[in-house]
This record gives sequence, C-alpha cells and structure tokens, in this order.
Amino acid sequence: MKRSFIREILEHTTNKTISFAGGLPDENLFPNEQLKQSAIKVLEDKNTLQYTKSTGIDSLKEKIAQMYTDEGFPTTKENIMITSGSQQALDIIARYNSQKDITIEAPSYLGAMNVFNLNKLNQKEITLEDDGINIKAFEKSIKETKLCYIIPDFQNPTGKSYSQTKRNEIAKIITKHDGILIEDSPYSELYFETKSKIISKDLPKNSFHLGTFSKTLAPSLRIGWIRADETLLNPLISYKEAMDLHTNGLSQYILNDYLNDTHNFHSHLESLRAVYKQKMLLFKKYLDLYLPKFEYIEPKGGMFIYGKLPNINTAELVKVCLKNDVVFVPGVEFYSENKVHDEIRFNFTHTNEEQIIQGLSKIAVIVSSINK
Amino acid sequence: MKRSFIREILEHTTNKTISFAGGLPDENLFPNEQLKQSAIKVLEDKNTLQYTKSTGIDSLKEKIAQMYTDEGFPTTKENIMITSGSQQALDIIARYNSQKDITIEAPSYLGAMNVFNLNKLNQKEITLEDDGINIKAFEKSIKETKLCYIIPDFQNPTGKSYSQTKRNEIAKIITKHDGILIEDSPYSELYFETKSKIISKDLPKNSFHLGTFSKTLAPSLRIGWIRADETLLNPLISYKEAMDLHTNGLSQYILNDYLNDTHNFHSHLESLRAVYKQKMLLFKKYLDLYLPKFEYIEPKGGMFIYGKLPNINTAELVKVCLKNDVVFVPGVEFYSENKVHDEIRFNFTHTNEEQIIQGLSKIAVIVSSINK
Repeated sequence: MKRSFIREILEHTTNKTISFAGGLPDENLFPNEQLKQSAIKVLEDKNTLQYTKSTGIDSLKEKIAQMYTDEGFPTTKENIMITSGSQQALDIIARYNSQKDITIEAPSYLGAMNVFNLNKLNQKEITLEDDGINIKAFEKSIKETKLCYIIPDFQNPTGKSYSQTKRNEIAKIITKHDGILIEDSPYSELYFETKSKIISKDLPKNSFHLGTFSKTLAPSLRIGWIRADETLLNPLISYKEAMDLHTNGLSQYILNDYLNDTHNFHSHLESLRAVYKQKMLLFKKYLDLYLPKFEYIEPKGGMFIYGKLPNINTAELVKVCLKNDVVFVPGVEFYSENKVHDEIRFNFTHTNEEQIIQGLSKIAVIVSSINK
Repeated sequence: MKRSFIREILEHTTNKTISFAGGLPDENLFPNEQLKQSAIKVLEDKNTLQYTKSTGIDSLKEKIAQMYTDEGFPTTKENIMITSGSQQALDIIARYNSQKDITIEAPSYLGAMNVFNLNKLNQKEITLEDDGINIKAFEKSIKETKLCYIIPDFQNPTGKSYSQTKRNEIAKIITKHDGILIEDSPYSELYFETKSKIISKDLPKNSFHLGTFSKTLAPSLRIGWIRADETLLNPLISYKEAMDLHTNGLSQYILNDYLNDTHNFHSHLESLRAVYKQKMLLFKKYLDLYLPKFEYIEPKGGMFIYGKLPNINTAELVKVCLKNDVVFVPGVEFYSENKVHDEIRFNFTHTNEEQIIQGLSKIAVIVSSINK
C-alpha cells in the first residue's frame, strides 16, 4: 500500500521547511495551560490510568451527545463511540463495509481514500462543485453504491461547503434509496461566519456523523467519535475492541474535565475562528500578490485554500519546491480515478506571515522559471 | 463478529462485582504522581499537542530500542513502531498478513484470536504444554503456515512459560523453514524470579517482537510497540497511518519524560514484581482452601492462574457466578477449534484479600451446589 503524501512529507521536512502541506492547527492556539490543569486533576484518580470501556468513557460520550442535542439533533451516549481520532472512525466503518462500493467526492480526503483502499472499497468519484457534489451524478451513483462519504463543511481539500439546497437534496436522495451517509465533519466548528446544518439530522437512522477534537483542540489527543443510530453503531463495537481495545483513557479524562467548562470551550472556539479567518485573509493577500494566476474560491472556514495553477503540473512543481524547503500538496493526490494535474492545496492555519511571504515568493520564483 | 467476553464483562459488571476476569493491573501501583509531574512538564511545550510522526516520537522509540540493546538485542529507533497498545500492533501485523494461515498456541490470547478472525487468518492450534508449545506439532504446522503467534512468558491465559530448550528449538525451526515469529511479550517484565531470553533475538530478521507499557505502567496510556527488522517493519507504516495517523502524542511525550529516569522505572518494576508475587501467593492460598479440586501450576510471573475444575462446565458456571456478582473467564473462550470446557482463568493482580476471599468462597458454594 502507498503511504500518505502528507504523512511522508511530515517525516521528511526539516525545521527549515516551510510547509503549507499538512492540515495542522496553529500550535499557538492550543489550550496547553487548561489541559495541564485538567491533567493534574484527573491524574489524582488511579482510575484514570486503568483500562476502560471499548466505546469510551460515559461522561465524555454524554458531553458529545449533548452537543448534538443542543443543535437540535437528539442524541444520547448510546449513539456515540469514541475513536482514536476520526481517522480510526473511518477505518472502523470502512472495515465493516469492506469490499462494497462507495460514492465519494472528487477530490476527496486522502486519508479516507487510503482507508477505503485498505478495506478494498470500490470508490466512485463524483465531481464536487462549488456548492456541493453534483446532485444528478450523486443520485445515479448512490442508487448503485448505497453508501457515500462526504465532507460538507469546508471540505478537505477544496475548502468548499454544501449549500442548504444541496444538503436537503442529499438527505432526500439517500432516504429515497435507503442508503447510508458517512458525514465527516472535522472542520465544521471552524466557520468564519455561520454554521451549516448537519445533514445526518435529516436521516438519523441512515447516517454516521464523524467528529474530532483534533482541529478544534489538539490533534495529539487523538480523540474523535462516531455518532450513529444504535442499530448502525452496535455492530462496530467488536471491531473497535479488536483494533485497539479502547481509545486512550488519559486523553478522554483530560478532555472530559476540560469540557466541564462549556463556556471556556466555546470562547476557545470563537478565538480560533477569529484567528483562522485573519490567517486566511493574510494568506489570500500574499497568494494574490505572488501567484496572481492561481484560481480559487475564498473559503468560508476550515483550514485550506484550494485552487488551480493553469497548465502547471503541480506534482512536478512540488518536487522542485521541496528542494527549496517549501511544500504544499499537489491536487492530484486527492483524486482516485480522474486525476487533475494543475491543482494545489494550501494550508493557511499553520504558518505565520513571515513564512507565508517566504514560502509563496519562493513558489512564485519556481513557477516563473518553469513558465520560461 | 463476536464481542470479546472480557470486554463485554467489563461493561456489564457493577461496583459490586468481584472480577477475576480482566487482565487488569492493580491501580494502587500506578505511578500517578510521577506521570502527573511528567504531564505538567511536557504540557509546557506547544508541540506536545500537535500531530506527530506515524511511527511515534523519536526519543521514545530510542528509549525502547535501548532497552533491547541493553538486553543484548541490538536495536535502533528504525526497528521500532509505536502502536496504540500492543492490541493495535497485532492488528497491523495481522492485517498485513490477511487471509494467511497462522500457527497459534491452544489456548491463546482472546484478543489475538479476535484480531486474526477479523483479518481472516486461518488459525492452526497447537497444544501448549507446561514448558511451551508441543515442538513436533509446531514444526509440522510452521512448515505449512510459515507464520506463528506465541506468548512465551507467563502466557495469557495459562501463565505458562517456555523453557530455554523450547525457545532454542522454536528459533531453529522458524529459521529452518524461513518462517515469521510474532512474539508477544506483555508480561515479560512481570517475572517473580528471573527474566527469560527473548526468542526473537535469535531470529532478528524473521520476527516481530511486541511490547507494551499497559501491564507495567498504565493501560490507559495505550502505548505498545513492534520491534522488527526494517524490511519487515517498513511495509507496515502505511497501514498504521491509514488506521489512526499516529499513536496518542500526549501519552508518548509523558511516557518519554517518565522514562528519562531509568532508575525510577526499574525500581517501579521491582516493586510491581514483589507485590504481584505476594498477590499470587495470596490468591493461591485461598484457591487451595476454597477450590481444592482446582488443578493448576503455580505461575512464575504474569497476571493469571489457570487451571482445570474437573467435570465442571465453566461456561455454565460463570453464568451463575455473574448473577452472584463474581466473575472469571471460562477457558473455552481461549480456544478456537478444540474447545476444552472445564478450565478457568483467574486474574490475581487486581483484587485485594477481602475480594479474593469473598469471590472464591462464593464460587466454591456455587460449585458444590452444582456437584450435588
């Protein structure tokens, strides 16, 4: 099996490398001090270090369930499984659906495509338009596959979000054909203006909704979750426990303690949104300055600016860039079938202004040398 | 897929239940205070909460490698992959070897058999004798399967250990047939008198050696590892990253800091060995008192006393016991083919004297009521 471009990059970059590649949050926004206070508190209890339940600790599941209920999507702890990041959530679901056909967006999340490959799912790509997946092609595909995977909010890699109309249509189509939706929502809380409606809410019995604290709090905690009806969730428990018994208990207890203060978490999210919006605008400013030919749509949240550098093979470009200590992900990595060769994904959350200037100006020089 | 008996038990027992079922360490021995100090220290660094490398953080891999080198088994960080518990290590290796035949001990570790089933490995059971697997049957089987899974030290469930003679023979046979050894060592450090030799040392290019901090430090950290030659280890990296990107970073940094003081870790291990030996002797005392017909061999380390209650169907017995708030694992759970029905695994590390007395006396009453 092929390794992930981004994960390999992560291992081969040095301190000198300016990376627009990974979906890395800004470390400066990690709530280290508060998580430390929570760690101190929960480590008073011997039980924090013991084995725990396969699906996660009850109090954390209850808190996550409450977040859904607060959004008008009634949920109990029996609908929640805590996973080792939402990457594992994808693996568990894919494993249970091994060898089936699945409808996905093109382009889509690399880690999902890898896990679908690992589980021998047959991926059917449908073009992602500016307001969501192409509905006509989606319906045709879901009739066959019954199973689909989409990222409706600030999609990875494109940063695109589904319109409310398309959300409604997706729900209707899946219900009509008794399909199953896998709705991946790592970036949903990272909106600049408004939060969109969860599609799964309209098909509670036919959906897996995936969430994570990796983008909102800290990736290293590796805490994600699946929200699903019990009839869909319960068959997955034996998979979860065979895979790693249960998700890291210490992280669960720390997070559970941190989330006791919901006001605190909400104000953290608000500052995250404000900073990331500023970072996006900053990135956009220099992008327009250094790479004026780059065609893209300004994202309304998330972590990525995605677009097209017409007639440039970006997979070739990145090789030269890497030698010059700057890196991004060429769009071709995000397609499984009909590969597009002139696209780029830039992450705007992790670098600072100086790095953005240095990195983008270097890329600009390399691009102009290619064009000669 | 069937759920694990032990994991299900764990979820359905109450505070009232006296459990001899799980392989749970004694919470009183968890180094909470020291891990707290390490947590405080590492949470000063923003980087502790960021994504990290797929195979684990370098400094922790180096420390684990050093432990092998210190035992005369030359190892570098390139030979180590950090996993989410050794349960995930088993899953990664089994996944890579999906659908192959594998030679295992009978009885064997339930979690391994589950993960082999999940990955559609065809398990060939070979009787585990008091000094290790039956060598003749093992050689015959390995010729066919090429792949084997054994737990040579204080085996789960039997508590048995391999003699040095059998260790040598195993290494010779696997080398001769160019097979692959999966040597699982969760209990190796929990010896009462002497540590045995790692079999993998004699076949460094043909072995996966699995370790974990779950039994020696704290299960909730979910930190295990694979030690293997790079030619065997490198193909597993794409699996690991597709499965959960990387193992919990916070736990890795905490553990890495804790292990900076090797003297501290060694004295922790020594007190663990001393306490568990006393606990085993205590358990044995009451076992001989309340269940004099229970036939077993006194273990020389580990966490379990395993034996036989002649002519009692222990799977039926445990159902009655559960209603009376006491539980153990019936031996039948640990066999995949040729099931034995009158065996029991008792964990002796987790309960205290009062619980042992209460639990075993209850079982004795139930057994004598069956015998009437």
